Amino acid sequence: MRPNEMTASSAAEAIRRGELTSEQLVAGCLERIAEVEARVGAWTWLDPDHALAQARAADARQRAGAALGALHGIPVGIKDIFDTADMPTEDGTVLHAGRRPAADATAVALLRAAGAVIMGKTVTAELAVYAPGKTTNPHDPRRTPGGSSSGSAAAVAANMVPLAIGTQTNGSVLRPASYCGVHGFKPSHGSISRHGVLKQSLALDHVGVFARSVDDVALIARELLVHDGKDPDVPPHTSLALDDWRFAGGRPPRIAFVRTPQWPQASGATQDAFASLAAQWSDFAHEVELPREFGSAVQWHRTIMETDLASSFAAEYASGKDRLSSALREMIERGQRHLAVDYSRALDGVAALRLALARLFSEWDAVLTPATQGVAPLGLESTGSPMFCTIWTLCGVPAISLPMLRGEDGMPLGAQLVAARGDDANLLRIAKWLEQRREGARP
Amino acid sequence: MRPNEMTASSAAEAIRRGELTSEQLVAGCLERIAEVEARVGAWTWLDPDHALAQARAADARQRAGAALGALHGIPVGIKDIFDTADMPTEDGTVLHAGRRPAADATAVALLRAAGAVIMGKTVTAELAVYAPGKTTNPHDPRRTPGGSSSGSAAAVAANMVPLAIGTQTNGSVLRPASYCGVHGFKPSHGSISRHGVLKQSLALDHVGVFARSVDDVALIARELLVHDGKDPDVPPHTSLALDDWRFAGGRPPRIAFVRTPQWPQASGATQDAFASLAAQWSDFAHEVELPREFGSAVQWHRTIMETDLASSFAAEYASGKDRLSSALREMIERGQRHLAVDYSRALDGVAALRLALARLFSEWDAVLTPATQGVAPLGLESTGSPMFCTIWTLCGVPAISLPMLRGEDGMPLGAQLVAARGDDANLLRIAKWLEQRREGARP
Repeated sequence: MRPNEMTASSAAEAIRRGELTSEQLVAGCLERIAEVEARVGAWTWLDPDHALAQARAADARQRAGAALGALHGIPVGIKDIFDTADMPTEDGTVLHAGRRPAADATAVALLRAAGAVIMGKTVTAELAVYAPGKTTNPHDPRRTPGGSSSGSAAAVAANMVPLAIGTQTNGSVLRPASYCGVHGFKPSHGSISRHGVLKQSLALDHVGVFARSVDDVALIARELLVHDGKDPDVPPHTSLALDDWRFAGGRPPRIAFVRTPQWPQASGATQDAFASLAAQWSDFAHEVELPREFGSAVQWHRTIMETDLASSFAAEYASGKDRLSSALREMIERGQRHLAVDYSRALDGVAALRLALARLFSEWDAVLTPATQGVAPLGLESTGSPMFCTIWTLCGVPAISLPMLRGEDGMPLGAQLVAARGDDANLLRIAKWLEQRREGARP
Repeated sequence: MRPNEMTASSAAEAIRRGELTSEQLVAGCLERIAEVEARVGAWTWLDPDHALAQARAADARQRAGAALGALHGIPVGIKDIFDTADMPTEDGTVLHAGRRPAADATAVALLRAAGAVIMGKTVTAELAVYAPGKTTNPHDPRRTPGGSSSGSAAAVAANMVPLAIGTQTNGSVLRPASYCGVHGFKPSHGSISRHGVLKQSLALDHVGVFARSVDDVALIARELLVHDGKDPDVPPHTSLALDDWRFAGGRPPRIAFVRTPQWPQASGATQDAFASLAAQWSDFAHEVELPREFGSAVQWHRTIMETDLASSFAAEYASGKDRLSSALREMIERGQRHLAVDYSRALDGVAALRLALARLFSEWDAVLTPATQGVAPLGLESTGSPMFCTIWTLCGVPAISLPMLRGEDGMPLGAQLVAARGDDANLLRIAKWLEQRREGARP
């Protein structure tokens, strides 16, 4: 196995044992990037020398006997909306071209503190909304990788890096994870600091991670779930949320298979794949219908997100609306016109949905539902629809896309697993249990 | 001491020891009500027979050897916006005249479960906003008792009941407590369930309590800080927040004396009273200035509250706007016109204030600041200004008004003590320490 194909957990272990150096690992990743980047286009800024210098410094620290962080020597891709003190941060818009932040975002600083090599900046959709960047799907260059964390998902899927970070305000972590066939995890709202990250909406923005195994998701997420007095939504006890996440045996999880009001818009192959999964897991997964009010979730999300975009991007709109995509310009203009009472009603609606989910999760350990309507659509003009992620983002519950299904043309398709707010450790535990069960069931 | 003059803690202890019956206590309170209610007008619904029947039932339970709740046999006044299954709930508006809820609000059910006698319903301002009911200030009938929890504050101040509950969306617990010379406590936002309570604003509405001592505040609050799956903002661990609240010795608290941007609007007597308090407590209280952004708090609060009123009272406006006070009608109409981007910006502003307060409370145990501009104003056409409560309500931090000062004409004036969100137990601990220190210092 080439080093760039290793999971982060195996690579970290190999480095710790002295069987692999960070320089060898990063060099392997750079070699892979040289092979496929022209086709995939995952990176917006990458300096091989800077990455290798970080790797050599990590190796030197290890040789000097320093204490090693959990991500010691592991390269991580950073969506280009996280501030980095040593690299530009351009937010996927010409309006921010050449932007050089003075300091790292908290998440980036935490990764460095854990010993990670900050590999480079990955392509984001315009201002982390919908208009695509240059990235293509590693499984089929005619297809979108999904967005807005396009480059992070594609880079992990194409074995260019074992880990990457992104953000989700609607479906920007789980959708590209589903399309690219990797694990994409968005913890409970307010689990990972957004300080130094381009803001769309305090209520909806989540930091998330990409990896090629549940173990790797937990490995990086544990380093990021840390209290930060600079994000108003991160509670003091965040850093405990993933302690002891491994499945400790006991009874099988109780899984609610939820179609959601978006089910009729899922593709035939998606509906079939989930029917077959539900049949295979009928001993512990049962179909559950969401209460009727979930039918308004997409509209409430739209009101909040369009309004918050209009507020957060007021300066960009004022100074350069002609250089925004027409789709984003129209979202902002709808946001400018929304009435506050409709925004207030949307927040009240979300509060009711949260109560309904709390009731649901008092009976079920997790929800299983599609991550996307289907596989990555053909064409690069759109990043696909986030509709299967909206409810879970809006309610701030943790969600992970598991690359265990195949849809049309054998393309990857994610199964989305969702748990109660704050139940992140349990979500990962159940995700791992399901994957092992799925592996065991394969002929 | 007549039984109606006892604190709830002493009365509960006397009942438990068999030295007093609930019937004697309730009869004493009813006697006091008969004496002063014509002047004070604290009650909108009160049936002496129903109260006495509850008291006799409590006494019978005790004689039968039943386990006794913390409020066993103690009469409590209920602001007339809490649903009560056995009494009307008319919300201070003719539009809800004759309204008979089917079930108790969670807070009322918790009081009954703790053994309390639900004495009756106390006068609220119109829909718990500003337009006054019939209540006058027990210290001077020419003056307002404050609002909107007017009757609850006045009933406790006039020794008609030892305890009452109310609500605060701006200054509706602490203002009447300050004007009437009683303790008014509003715990952290989301500490007490609002299920079954007239809703103005999920973001701003708090349930609070009135009593005549810090011990009594803790006695009733502990019964109310309980998780309720019917209020989206009440977290699972609420019921622990007041455990072990008593001051355990150790170092004196570090108190930040904060003038707030509203200071120039405080009366001369208020400014003098606080200057003298600050001088007396100069060994542990120091003047601290709030960061500049707190100057926008009142405007942000207004945007959120007017919008949420327009949303929450849409039906009342549609069916009976002529029977609303002109002040409330105008607030609703402003709320209908606010743009969602301004609401969103207000929420972002509040998030920044919360971070600033978290930093302040990492250096200081509590904030000391006026509860009101001055003493209860002369005249009954207004309930006074909530401006000295706005910042703390908006940020959801716990606050208590301590009746330790006197202002113009010897009228009572509250010192407001505020702590970090979730630090409710510490707030009460420090309040008690300050009161003991103040008592000890008196000639």
